[in-house]
Amino acid sequence: MIVETRYQDLYTPDDPFTMESGATLPNVTVAYETYGTLDASGTNAVLVCHALTGSAHAAGLHPGESTPGGWWDSFIGPGKPLDTERFFVICSNFLGSCYGTTGPLSIDPSTGRPYGMTFPQMTVRDMVTVQKRLIDQLGVRQLRTVIGGSLGGMQVLEWGVMFPDSVASLIPIATSAQHSAWSVGLNDIGRQAIMNDPDWRGGEYHGHGQPRRGLSLARQVAMMSYRSEREFAGRFGRAKRQENGDRFDPENIFQVESYLRHQGKKLVDRFDANTYLYITRAMDLHDVAYGRGALPDVLASVRHPALCIGIDSDILYPAHEQRSIAEALLSAEYREIASPYGHDAFLIEFEQMASFVREFLR
Amino acid sequence: MIVETRYQDLYTPDDPFTMESGATLPNVTVAYETYGTLDASGTNAVLVCHALTGSAHAAGLHPGESTPGGWWDSFIGPGKPLDTERFFVICSNFLGSCYGTTGPLSIDPSTGRPYGMTFPQMTVRDMVTVQKRLIDQLGVRQLRTVIGGSLGGMQVLEWGVMFPDSVASLIPIATSAQHSAWSVGLNDIGRQAIMNDPDWRGGEYHGHGQPRRGLSLARQVAMMSYRSEREFAGRFGRAKRQENGDRFDPENIFQVESYLRHQGKKLVDRFDANTYLYITRAMDLHDVAYGRGALPDVLASVRHPALCIGIDSDILYPAHEQRSIAEALLSAEYREIASPYGHDAFLIEFEQMASFVREFLR
Repeated sequence: MIVETRYQDLYTPDDPFTMESGATLPNVTVAYETYGTLDASGTNAVLVCHALTGSAHAAGLHPGESTPGGWWDSFIGPGKPLDTERFFVICSNFLGSCYGTTGPLSIDPSTGRPYGMTFPQMTVRDMVTVQKRLIDQLGVRQLRTVIGGSLGGMQVLEWGVMFPDSVASLIPIATSAQHSAWSVGLNDIGRQAIMNDPDWRGGEYHGHGQPRRGLSLARQVAMMSYRSEREFAGRFGRAKRQENGDRFDPENIFQVESYLRHQGKKLVDRFDANTYLYITRAMDLHDVAYGRGALPDVLASVRHPALCIGIDSDILYPAHEQRSIAEALLSAEYREIASPYGHDAFLIEFEQMASFVREFLR
Repeated sequence: MIVETRYQDLYTPDDPFTMESGATLPNVTVAYETYGTLDASGTNAVLVCHALTGSAHAAGLHPGESTPGGWWDSFIGPGKPLDTERFFVICSNFLGSCYGTTGPLSIDPSTGRPYGMTFPQMTVRDMVTVQKRLIDQLGVRQLRTVIGGSLGGMQVLEWGVMFPDSVASLIPIATSAQHSAWSVGLNDIGRQAIMNDPDWRGGEYHGHGQPRRGLSLARQVAMMSYRSEREFAGRFGRAKRQENGDRFDPENIFQVESYLRHQGKKLVDRFDANTYLYITRAMDLHDVAYGRGALPDVLASVRHPALCIGIDSDILYPAHEQRSIAEALLSAEYREIASPYGHDAFLIEFEQMASFVREFLR
């Protein structure tokens, strides 16, 4: 399945985007990919919402790629749970990200330089508003479902509230209806790690290189929250880089330390530090009830058939939180993934995820 | 109960301390406090082992203190679980800490400047070796029990293996027999936070002020692991500093963010950054089986009556880890604290802790 990321100018200076904060963006370009074919009625589309560091490249091969680089390739394609012989699958990079959609790394037309920290703070609702305009332009009349985990699931819930007639069902996975104090705390620690780094330069690092140590550290904190004690015990134990090396040698670190630093470096090489600040803040501001009344009432007003999925070992968006969302929605079922992998299990436990989603979409 | 911290020179240039690494310290001074009176047989002593950032000041009032500043004052005193009418309670600041015992903040006699990063890496076994010399000098023939949580519990387990005849029972709480990959990962993230801070200056910050941002961030990461998602949800929810303030104002942070930063600042004002690096590394090196055979055999060789205490919400040293330790020791019972407070519950859930310990010491 060869795909290309496409780019759509959704807002222009003549038709600017007004954000939830009241700020306006004169231009919004969105990067997106589609897989499969939209049917004549415009009702077989599935919107896939990505998480913090994801992109529009969810599945398939880009020209030149030797192995599929999409972040959910196992899930999207012919015969796969999001079956492209049946569905027109859309994944768009959300507003404020750094993979082709307008965000802090984009050029501010008024200065000719990257927005950086002058980009207005976007919200999950802003992301969904932009997605709605994209699916309208693609000719979608009603989405068959919206699916996503983590920050992706926050978008799913907002879809149910903001555009109830434009979506037929919802699949929020390992997410929050209101970002918890726990998750806010973890995000804030990551932000401090970035902003403490002198190479962050108050966000004006463009042309100087990223705040590498800070962004790496933010990622490492996040990685701990995406995984679990049980997985680390089985995977690393007390293994050291050199088992026969000097145990007092500061260079002879534990494999878990080496793993975390490697994960940090990998993110630094592919993600923008200011963007990380903006997206984590958008997550922290996420609250489906904000300005709409009490949370139970807001969730009960969502009448779509919904499949809520939790993970038994998730310490970031715990299973009890997913059960609560399922109970509060008017017509939701709850399924739980049994896994040692923690929050990331929704990207790892293919068999369980596939069976839940196939059954729901049948 | 008025107490003073006392100081004992346990090793001197004529009788230096040889560490587990082979390095030697020409001088070791230990800060310690005692509560109650040693009986004639020298067998009513209880050794209290403190955790990462603790000190010898476990209980009582220092001259000039208006409220008891000891870290476990609720637990130690007349009629309290560690009853000073019955027991001679000892708490010493362990080797490598910064509250009066020789460590990285001490003056290196060969340079006249603080050791800093030239201090040899101490281990939990070194801490226990030094404690043994202290109790010998205090005239203790056999400890009635050794008790401690977290890093304190690691010392407790080493006491059982290293000096089995010098202790009659053991109370390890919320601890590890081998520091887990999970806990190593969290510690390493804290160390990186400190060492990333340019104010750390490769450890040569003396006279310039501490690496405040780095040490604060390390503490905040640790605080998350000491508490729990459930506690934070109940305590902070989504409360903001100013509920009627602008939710997009970066200064109008969530209360959980304010709390974490405050906790970070509090530690910076009372603890030394290099010392934090050394102690967390000592924890990571902790492995009661190292050089002694297989872990089950080593733990089964510990024949003391033992009370192992776990906490149901502890994500740092989880309850299953405490159950495993209890099962592996030859003669241990396991009790579990039910609490939303996570790892810190052993310092908070007084009633449950008190009932377990009173019953065991009866």
